[in-house]
Amino acid sequence: MSDWATYLADNRQKILDDYFALLRIPSISALPQHADDVRRAARWVADRATRAGLENVRIMDTGGHPVVYGDRLHAPGKPTFLLYGHFDVQPVDPLDLWTSPPFEPTVRAAAQGAPGTGGEGRVYARGASDMKGNLLLQLAALEALRETTGGFPVNVKLFYEGQVEIGSPQVPAFLTKQRDLFACDLVISGDSGQYDEQTPELSLGARGLAALEIDMTGASSDLHSGLFGGAVQNPLHALVQLLGSMRGPNGRILVEGFYDDVRPLSDEERAMIARYPFDEAKFGAELGVDELFGEEGYSPIERMWARPTLELNGLWGGFQGQGSKTVLPNEAHAKITCRLVPNQDPDRIRALLRAHVERHRPPGVRVSLGDRTGGAKPYLIPADHWGNRAAAAVLKELYGREPLHVRSGGTVPVMDLFKTTLGVETVGFGFFQDDEHFHAPDEFMRLANFERGLRGYCMLFQHLGAASPASSGTGSR
Amino acid sequence: MSDWATYLADNRQKILDDYFALLRIPSISALPQHADDVRRAARWVADRATRAGLENVRIMDTGGHPVVYGDRLHAPGKPTFLLYGHFDVQPVDPLDLWTSPPFEPTVRAAAQGAPGTGGEGRVYARGASDMKGNLLLQLAALEALRETTGGFPVNVKLFYEGQVEIGSPQVPAFLTKQRDLFACDLVISGDSGQYDEQTPELSLGARGLAALEIDMTGASSDLHSGLFGGAVQNPLHALVQLLGSMRGPNGRILVEGFYDDVRPLSDEERAMIARYPFDEAKFGAELGVDELFGEEGYSPIERMWARPTLELNGLWGGFQGQGSKTVLPNEAHAKITCRLVPNQDPDRIRALLRAHVERHRPPGVRVSLGDRTGGAKPYLIPADHWGNRAAAAVLKELYGREPLHVRSGGTVPVMDLFKTTLGVETVGFGFFQDDEHFHAPDEFMRLANFERGLRGYCMLFQHLGAASPASSGTGSR
Repeated sequence: MSDWATYLADNRQKILDDYFALLRIPSISALPQHADDVRRAARWVADRATRAGLENVRIMDTGGHPVVYGDRLHAPGKPTFLLYGHFDVQPVDPLDLWTSPPFEPTVRAAAQGAPGTGGEGRVYARGASDMKGNLLLQLAALEALRETTGGFPVNVKLFYEGQVEIGSPQVPAFLTKQRDLFACDLVISGDSGQYDEQTPELSLGARGLAALEIDMTGASSDLHSGLFGGAVQNPLHALVQLLGSMRGPNGRILVEGFYDDVRPLSDEERAMIARYPFDEAKFGAELGVDELFGEEGYSPIERMWARPTLELNGLWGGFQGQGSKTVLPNEAHAKITCRLVPNQDPDRIRALLRAHVERHRPPGVRVSLGDRTGGAKPYLIPADHWGNRAAAAVLKELYGREPLHVRSGGTVPVMDLFKTTLGVETVGFGFFQDDEHFHAPDEFMRLANFERGLRGYCMLFQHLGAASPASSGTGSR
Repeated sequence: MSDWATYLADNRQKILDDYFALLRIPSISALPQHADDVRRAARWVADRATRAGLENVRIMDTGGHPVVYGDRLHAPGKPTFLLYGHFDVQPVDPLDLWTSPPFEPTVRAAAQGAPGTGGEGRVYARGASDMKGNLLLQLAALEALRETTGGFPVNVKLFYEGQVEIGSPQVPAFLTKQRDLFACDLVISGDSGQYDEQTPELSLGARGLAALEIDMTGASSDLHSGLFGGAVQNPLHALVQLLGSMRGPNGRILVEGFYDDVRPLSDEERAMIARYPFDEAKFGAELGVDELFGEEGYSPIERMWARPTLELNGLWGGFQGQGSKTVLPNEAHAKITCRLVPNQDPDRIRALLRAHVERHRPPGVRVSLGDRTGGAKPYLIPADHWGNRAAAAVLKELYGREPLHVRSGGTVPVMDLFKTTLGVETVGFGFFQDDEHFHAPDEFMRLANFERGLRGYCMLFQHLGAASPASSGTGSR
């Protein structure tokens, strides 16, 4: 057993206590009433980083939720790695669908008959999997290495942020301003996962994001649906009509120009995707759907990884209570997000959405559009990048199998930002699994993955210290 | 000045105090937590009826919200009139759009620039206009007549119910069982209005109602819209698609067979409707809409009175909070009501709606349908019915003008029920105006109309006592 492995085993409970302490902080970035909790999580992470051996640790103001910085640059001639993660989480509603309270981390076995492997030990909490666990892996592994080897095998900087779940609105300007501070050779992102408990994967990219909120108003107040129904436009119907014009019944997006910039999948990409083991029936059963659904001509995996979407995230208006209210409502609202693929641009997509709404605006209502959520470009890294080769070697040792090459359907806005601002690529190295209810009730992380991740990060840092190309010199200030 | 007029003037404040006391009871029939308030309103009405001189007053169980009965049958040879009203009210949300709390009646002038005449004195409260004010007119007028003439000029029974705003689910069975108790020659309904402060109207009918609730479910929990978007049906999109198939962009209803039983408007009916003074620009301005909207080939009034509708009363699913939540929701819900015209039948319409949903059910979701709200048939009474002639004579005296003949777009389910169960017609005699925000925030009634209504009911009872055809004998038990 290596020294760090012994250290991890000896300190298992302490590391778990830390994990739970971080999970107890309700750092929901989308809700203004939780802004202090996001800051509290930043302070907690900063303290933990200092304990791990990071220096120059500070909580940096972005104009919104803060960023935690830290570094340890005592490995001359070695590359500098920027460790990336986020300590904010998604909202928790609908709260009544949680088995245990979202901010009281609870270890329990999976419910009888629940899908997925690794049922024996799961940490249930908002952020358990996305991604407070993965963030803590990085710090705990660094600490284990420092405690057992006297230092870090590579130069390290931290970029831990608190606004991913609202699209990181202040991060681009912040990072641009602080580009010298964050200069590095490669970003290692913990916001990543593995295929299952037996099979590792290497994530090569993520989809981009563009958001639009549509607000419609009709009369100046709600109206009696009997006395006025038939003479006045109902904003709910108008919204249904508009939304119906944006997506066809088969999931194809009808917004004019939406697919113009989509680079067609190459044969090589389709072959890579086809190699990914995917059991459609099992996938559907795990999600609880009778059938999958989506754009014709593409496999489900292609649709999730490499095809753009337009999804209604929320839709509401009128009476939602029990019983009946015969009202002709005067407001209707929809929240939409699109996932984008190379080479779609979020600004152009938003412009197309706005133009579509303008062109298909139903009569009898006023429409206003909001797009407060920052967009994100899609991202792709070559599979044979040196960082990916290092990660692949570690994963092969850790799992005994070659990693699958995957892409994420989700969005990590900073990956493109790191590329355009710092000129570096991002390698994903994290240990969640896709079935762990991110953004949904009963989010959990498998304890076995958490513990394997601790070992994995120790091995990765050692591997990078031994095998990486020499530093470009951007790492030492 | 007649004796009753003097009595009304002398007791003005007492009558208003009663009105406000009734308005303070939050008798929302749709919300289970207000069931006791509905019962409290019933007790209040029963006490007030006893004070007015009614005998045999009782609160009768229906299996749901109760009915208040009372009678006074001391006018031999005179007809028996069943006075109809309801003491339940609509829910009050959105509460933040009320200027003053909905159950704290407040007299104030209309806001600067507010539409409508009679701005100087308005009672703002839920139920002010629909219809606690109109209900109280009947009792206060009877009291004035008894106090000043020693009795009632006609035989009277009361049928005051507490479940109109939820479609009166228990009333049909209740009335059928109690048909002998409620036997009468004519129903006089206070759930009616006048054109404006200068112009009376006679209401000849109301539209029917059929309700449907659609609940869609997709995956077994909310999903991350990035990781899963593209592969799984989004219930919000599926619901949008289904609802889009039910109503065309011009308001025409696309449910198969929906118009089959609609009796085309006769030339005479269209002429009657055309005589109704209607300023489309003014109407739109009062509602705060830039343009009216609806089915082609019909005037706005025809669309409100004599054409069926399908309206979304509520629509919801997914994230409704501030900011963004990139979720693929697993539930979507819609509440729909249709207004029906002769000879549509609510049971048949519901069957057509269900068949339509079955036929257009989108893939990838489970659909369940609810129609807990009882339906109602449309109703029409001949304009020259003897009851209408009596009401018209009183209205002409009260306003100095012939009443307009109108139809209501709303629904009064009991009118058809009285006809089929008791074999009698229903004459509308009430004093609300259409712009008084029924079912909406800032509901109000004009004080001037309330006071004219008190005089109007005294005059109507006296006129009916003097001029009505002899009783059919059904009135005395």
